[in-house]
This record gives sequence, structure tokens and C-alpha cells, in this order.
Amino acid sequence: MVTAKWRSRNTLDELARSCEAIRMRWFLLIALTLVACATPQPKTVTPPPETPTPATQLRDAVLKGSHAHEFTRELADRIGPRLAGSPGDARAVAWAKAAMENLGLRDVRTEPVKVPHWVRGVETAQILTPAPQPLTVTAIGGSISTPEDGIEAELVEAASFDDLAKLPDAAVKGKIVFFSAVMARTATGEGYGANHRYRTDSASIAAKRGAVAVLVRSLSTDDARLPHTGAMMYADGAPKIPAAALSTPDADLLHRLGGRIRVRLVLTCQTLPDATSANVIGEIRGREKPEEIVVLGAHLDSWDLGSGAQDDGAGVGIVLETARQVLAANAPPRRTIRFVLFANEENGLRGGTAYAQAHKAELLKHVAAIEADGGDGAPTGLSYLGGPEQLAAVAPIAKLLAPLGVGAPEQAEHHGADLTPLRAAGVPMLSVHQDASRYFDWHHSADDTYDKIRPDQLARAAAAFAAVTYAAADSPSSFGRLPEPPPSGTKP
Amino acid sequence: MVTAKWRSRNTLDELARSCEAIRMRWFLLIALTLVACATPQPKTVTPPPETPTPATQLRDAVLKGSHAHEFTRELADRIGPRLAGSPGDARAVAWAKAAMENLGLRDVRTEPVKVPHWVRGVETAQILTPAPQPLTVTAIGGSISTPEDGIEAELVEAASFDDLAKLPDAAVKGKIVFFSAVMARTATGEGYGANHRYRTDSASIAAKRGAVAVLVRSLSTDDARLPHTGAMMYADGAPKIPAAALSTPDADLLHRLGGRIRVRLVLTCQTLPDATSANVIGEIRGREKPEEIVVLGAHLDSWDLGSGAQDDGAGVGIVLETARQVLAANAPPRRTIRFVLFANEENGLRGGTAYAQAHKAELLKHVAAIEADGGDGAPTGLSYLGGPEQLAAVAPIAKLLAPLGVGAPEQAEHHGADLTPLRAAGVPMLSVHQDASRYFDWHHSADDTYDKIRPDQLARAAAAFAAVTYAAADSPSSFGRLPEPPPSGTKP
Repeated sequence: MVTAKWRSRNTLDELARSCEAIRMRWFLLIALTLVACATPQPKTVTPPPETPTPATQLRDAVLKGSHAHEFTRELADRIGPRLAGSPGDARAVAWAKAAMENLGLRDVRTEPVKVPHWVRGVETAQILTPAPQPLTVTAIGGSISTPEDGIEAELVEAASFDDLAKLPDAAVKGKIVFFSAVMARTATGEGYGANHRYRTDSASIAAKRGAVAVLVRSLSTDDARLPHTGAMMYADGAPKIPAAALSTPDADLLHRLGGRIRVRLVLTCQTLPDATSANVIGEIRGREKPEEIVVLGAHLDSWDLGSGAQDDGAGVGIVLETARQVLAANAPPRRTIRFVLFANEENGLRGGTAYAQAHKAELLKHVAAIEADGGDGAPTGLSYLGGPEQLAAVAPIAKLLAPLGVGAPEQAEHHGADLTPLRAAGVPMLSVHQDASRYFDWHHSADDTYDKIRPDQLARAAAAFAAVTYAAADSPSSFGRLPEPPPSGTKP
Repeated sequence: MVTAKWRSRNTLDELARSCEAIRMRWFLLIALTLVACATPQPKTVTPPPETPTPATQLRDAVLKGSHAHEFTRELADRIGPRLAGSPGDARAVAWAKAAMENLGLRDVRTEPVKVPHWVRGVETAQILTPAPQPLTVTAIGGSISTPEDGIEAELVEAASFDDLAKLPDAAVKGKIVFFSAVMARTATGEGYGANHRYRTDSASIAAKRGAVAVLVRSLSTDDARLPHTGAMMYADGAPKIPAAALSTPDADLLHRLGGRIRVRLVLTCQTLPDATSANVIGEIRGREKPEEIVVLGAHLDSWDLGSGAQDDGAGVGIVLETARQVLAANAPPRRTIRFVLFANEENGLRGGTAYAQAHKAELLKHVAAIEADGGDGAPTGLSYLGGPEQLAAVAPIAKLLAPLGVGAPEQAEHHGADLTPLRAAGVPMLSVHQDASRYFDWHHSADDTYDKIRPDQLARAAAAFAAVTYAAADSPSSFGRLPEPPPSGTKP
């Protein structure tokens, strides 16, 4: 279904709209794919001493003296929230361009991207009966507003879409559906993958049953009274109803209260005409095959509630630190490394789409693509997605990560969201997996601020991304081309 | 200075206003007193087996089947925020009266109390330069509003009042003073005692130097992006300026940015005419000396941001659970236990003041007073404050807490805030100390909700309070009368 849906769409804009959903469904696929594809691992033996190479030296230089957290801090603290189309977004583009120029990257430029421009407004909710008190809510990104004086209705709780399906129409019609599914804390992010659809799809699913709004338990693993936003999509043919996320304590309160609960919800968010943002790009030219390109990306935009330190300031820090250290080593790899800070990952994927469109003619020369979008989590694995040649090319790269505790590479249907259009064009993917145990405590909430960044873990992640990127660009082997996306008839 | 100030005031209203500050200064005094007064403890030896008594049976019954968390849940979830004078406050009074009646307490009544009526409004703040982004703030309780379009000014950071004193007038005049002192996490609450003055006193101290507003790093040990409110007071003779608390991540952001920071602050909070609330009181009549009274209190009001589960829903739960279990045991103690749920502890102490006033004629018959206002923390100690006779009376009570891990009783200048006027009238004080390690993560913030309550720890606390209260009421000994408050010439 993921693939089928993906194939049936023709325009890049539609592709972008579907990417967010696809990406998240892939989170679930990873687990299945890992189980299916993992080859038995040899027992741990003492590895032979490592011969120093430019890649090992780069890795160790980053480990020892990473500035990744400093780039992250500057972006989070001095630019702050930067949702697509906002003043912060424009300032982030200028900041990123200046940062790349200051580092001494080549061909630094901004490539314009039309982005959706959704703005948050007032957002309040109260329990009216049986226990009057305020609820902490935030509009889910892309939601329509309520009428000016809000929506007042009774809640109906559903723990899942299946639960909702079992309810009679009369129990749903005219109600606010409260999706109470609890997201699990996992090191892999699987908990997010499993619950993500309640944020993205619940409004239309509930609207088709006659609901007037949805309140969704935040996709959060924390118990702070802060709701987590994120993107949602309205399905074709379903009435549009407002969608808001509840903080986990508020959702748990509603669940404890049970019974008949009457709520008022006011949201004044709105979608303005598209705005202009930009992908920010710079390069280190390859010494032997400058026309061949390895992309290392992250996304520059963030949600509006926090300052996007984890999502994706940390990724931006990793990209800029990789650039800084490769330049400092003064030993350019065989191929060109292109550093891309994508626009509008969060609510449209327009940056990734625009990049693939603008560089269509050279996508065959894109030999691999990597994206850092997992916060400050330490590296936990390396996966690849490419042709049969790829394992031979990836194995020596994975060895670089052994001192960081990363084992043998695995084949997995996994890549950064911004790389989805590249994946579709056959560009092989490399993924450094990161520990996500705490990522979803902060992700998409007001708590995504610099104080949550752990510089030591981020340095390990940066070292892994730098080593993988450099080694991919310097590899004597080819990574082949990526076969078609895997057939999949059912939603995971 | 504490005592001098306290003596020079004549009216109960003034007393109430000063109690909040006095209480907190006493937090600091405890540490000193404990050091000065603690007698050397014998080495731990295996205690002789305990002979069952009504008090030990009560303790064990509470430990085994405490409903304290259920009372707390009902108050927090079904009544919610209940700041003095608010609709929630009135509903809490009705709820508490019904709860006492349902338990079967005697002489259940409400005693009216005139309370301050402060209401929160809009509260927003932004960094304007050098790094435009919103700040998470909340008005400190009692603050005046800003002008309608806010106050826009440059910040000046001070880590302490001493720091502020060192700044030249020109560096403060016309500025918003940002107090950045970091509160320490302690099991005793000493961190709160040490930093409390930055919330209560900073507005007037800064205003005397010409500041136009203050922003105070929340008295919080958590890193969630939620500001913590609480009471503040304007000093006589100082201009009144608005005061707001910053969440700890926001305060840390300002500290990291440093340099010249321009901020806009908007607060529309206001003080309305006094409202009417009530102390809610019920009794278990003593079997031998019903005219002698042991008070077990907690406060019914809460701050408005959360639902007051820890502060002081847990204390209310402890009081009601003690009542429930003493009634269930059907073995009334020698003296009367009076259960008092005080109004308006948080921003006026008018409930405690009104109680002492209304019961002036019988204060000599108040043989001891105890207040539960330490959240759900497990018991860690027992202290007393009374005449020389008291140790002999307290020692056997303390032994009841040995199975809960509590050691020998200590003399300490410590008691619940609502008991301040009773202390002044010579009523001996007993205090069950509780582990405060996490209390200030949630205290006075939106995060003070029922999901943070740990029923197992609360049951231990309830068992300790129940045993101490019962044993005090059943004690064959007298607790004497309390000597005058200790002389103290300087602010701690």
C-alpha cells in the first residue's frame, strides 16, 4: 500500500505530502526488515589494530574536538523556532549560508523552495463537565481552526482506530474523538512509528465517522505537561475537522476521569499562502571524481513550539561539524561531498522534493545519500539500502564505527525523510542509526531546547556521520543503484 | 530580623502576609538548628519486637491499605486548580466538607475566611534582540500587570541580591532584572529555602534600584519548559513592578546568550476585591479529654497552573486517610483529633490566621499541631518544637516510625505554614519530614498533576502522619507549651 500509493501519484507536490506518512510507516518496516535480512553475526573477537586512514583520523578528530553542539546551540539559541515560512525560517537560511561560507565550503548557495505556511494561533481547551479545569493542548500542524468561539462537545475515547471502528455511529457523531494510545519508549523509535498515524491520520478517520474534532495523546515518552505537535494530513473526501494534541498528563487525566466528559476546544491556527524558503547547499570538491556526489543532509526547519535543538539542530550540527573537520584535514575524498540543509522537512518535505527536482539531471551521479535527523543520540547501527554491490562497499565503512560500538551493517528500508525523492530516483542510502531512548521526550514540543543536548553523545554521532560520509565519498567501490521500493500491499 | 519583624506587626492580616516569608526562612534555620540541637545517636541495634498498640495497628493499616492517593486523585482530577477565591476553591470547600461527612467525622463545618483574590491573565514574553524568540513565563502570584502593550526593556542579569547590589545604578535603572540563581535539588527542601527570596522579594529589591520588572529563574529542580509560580510580596515604600518566573530552560537560554538582550513582557494579572473561602473542619472526639485538641492539618487551596496534586492534594489525602483509618479502628484516642483543611495557604495564609483567631479561646487546649504539606514524599524524620517536657512525650511517638526508616526525633524550628499563628500562641509543633527530592520538579507548576503522585511513597507518609497524630492525641504525657520564637537578627 505504501508503494502502491506512492506510485500512483504523479506530481512532486503530492509526493511530498505523502512522504511524511511513508517515512513513519517505514519506522515499523525497519524492525521487520532487520529481522528478515540480518545475517548471523560472528562472535566478538578482539579486532586487529586499526591502520590509520583519513577516515579514522577524521572520526577521531570529531570525537575529540566536536563543535557539533556549538553549531546546534547557535542555531537553537540565536535563531530559535523556524517553521517553514516563518521569520525564523528566513533567518535560519541566512545563518546557515553564512556558516557554510565561514567554514570555507565551495559553491555555497541557497536554492529557493516554495513552502507551506501554517501559523499557530490561540489554542485553549477546558473540561466543562464533570470536572471543570483547563487542558494543555496544541494544534497539530496543518489543522484547520475551530469556529471563533470554539467547539463544545462530548468526548468519546478510542484507544486505537480499531477501537473507533467498533463504536456505533451514534457514539461518534457530533463528538470530539479522544485518541488515547500510549506511545512506548524504545531505543529505535519504533514506538513513534507505531503511534504516528494517530497524529497524522486521525482527523480524517474520525471525521468520516461524523466527529467534530480530535484530541490526540501526544506522541511523547515524557510526563511533562507539554503537548507535542507535528504534521497531520487531511484525506481526500473526508470533512476537515480540527486536530489538537494533548500533553500526556492531560490525556491521562481524561482517561482516568472516563465517563461523559464535555470539552471546549479553541484553535485559531491557519494556513496562509505558500511562502519561499530555501535549501542551503555547500560542497567539498572531490579530488578524483568531482562530478560524483555523496550527499550529507539534515533539515534546517523546525517546529514552532521549541527551538529545534534535537529536531534537527543536532543534525545541522553534525553536517556542519563534518564539513569543518573534512576541511580542516585538508584531504578531500575521491568524490564530492555535498552538504544539504533542507527546507521544510517538518510539514511538507518540499525541500527534499525541490532538491531532487532541481538536480534531476545529476541524480545518476549521486552515489550515496545520508541524512542526520535523529537528534543527539549516540550511534547504534549502520544500515544501507542499495544494489547487491553495496554490501562490499559498506562493510569497510561499517568497520570505522566499531570503536563507537556499532556492529556489522544491516540492510534496511530506512533513510532520512528528505531523501525520499532521491531514494525513488535510485540513489543508494546509508543510515547511521542513533539511540532514540530520550528523543521523544522532547521532539516537537516546547522542550526541544538546547539545554537537552548532550554534547558527548552528539560528538559520537557526529564522528559516525563524518566517518561514514567521508568513507563513502572516498570509497574505491560503487554503491550501485537502488532497486524499486519494496512492494507492500498493507499498511504496517 | 525574622522575629523582630514578626513582633512589630500588630494585625493578623499583616502577620499572614509575613508568614510566607518567615516560613521559608525557617527552611534554612532548620539545617542550623539540627546541627546545633541534634544529640549524638546510639549505634543502630536490633530493636526489641514491637508490642501492638492502637497506634502501631493504625500505622500498619494505612501502610497496607492507604486511600490517601485516592483522595488526592479525586481532589486533583475532579476539582483541579483551586487558588483562593477561584471557582475551583469554592468547589474544593464543598468537596472537602462532603468528604469529611462521608467519612463520618463529627462537627463537620466550614469556617469562613476572607481571602485575597488574585487572577492570572495573559502572560507572554519574547526576546526581541539579539535572538528573537518566545520565552515561557508565568506571573508570580500577587504581581501587578504590565501596561497593556507590555514592558519592553533591556535585561540585566544578577545571580544574587549581592550581585545586584554591586551593579551601578545606571546598569539597573529602566532595566528588567533577570535573577538567574539556580536552585539546588535536596532531599530536605533546603534548596528552596535558599532561593525562595528571589521569588518573594526580588521585585521590590530591584524596584528600589530603578528596575521596571523582574524575571526570576523558576524555583524548580526540573528541566521541563514550564515556569513555576508562587507568592511574592511588595515591600512598603518600594515602587511596585511586575514579576514573572521563567522556566529553567528559558532562564538558561538567557544566561547562555548573555550580553545585551532586549525583552518584551506582557502580564495582565490582577488583584480583585477579597473573596470568601473557608477552612473545612471535622473531628474525632477524644475518649478521655475531649476538650484537649491535636490538630492535623493540610491546605485545601492550590496554585492555579496545575491541579495541586502534590501541593497540597497529597496532604489533604493524608489528613482524610488518617481520619478514615482512625474511624475504622473504632478506638478513639484520649484527646480530640481536629482535622483542618486550611484555606489560602499559598498566597496569604489567611486560613491559618482565621483559624487561630476563631479558636483563640481554646488555643491553650491545643496540645499539639501537625501539618502535612510536603507532597507524596516518603517520611524521613520527625521533629518537634515545644517545651522541655516534649522530648519525653515525643520519644515513644518517634519509635512508631522506626519501621518506616525514621530515626530519633530532633528538635527543629519547623512546622507547616498554616500553623504559624498557633506556634505564635505557644501550641507545640510536631513535624513529619518528607523526602523532597522530586517535590520541586512539579511544585507550583502546571506539572503538579495526579500522574506525578507515587501511591507507595504517599502511603508511607500517610502511615507516619496517622501514627504520629494518633499517638499525640493518645499520649499520657503533656507536650508543654512552646517558648517564644527564637531571636534572629539577620535574614538567613
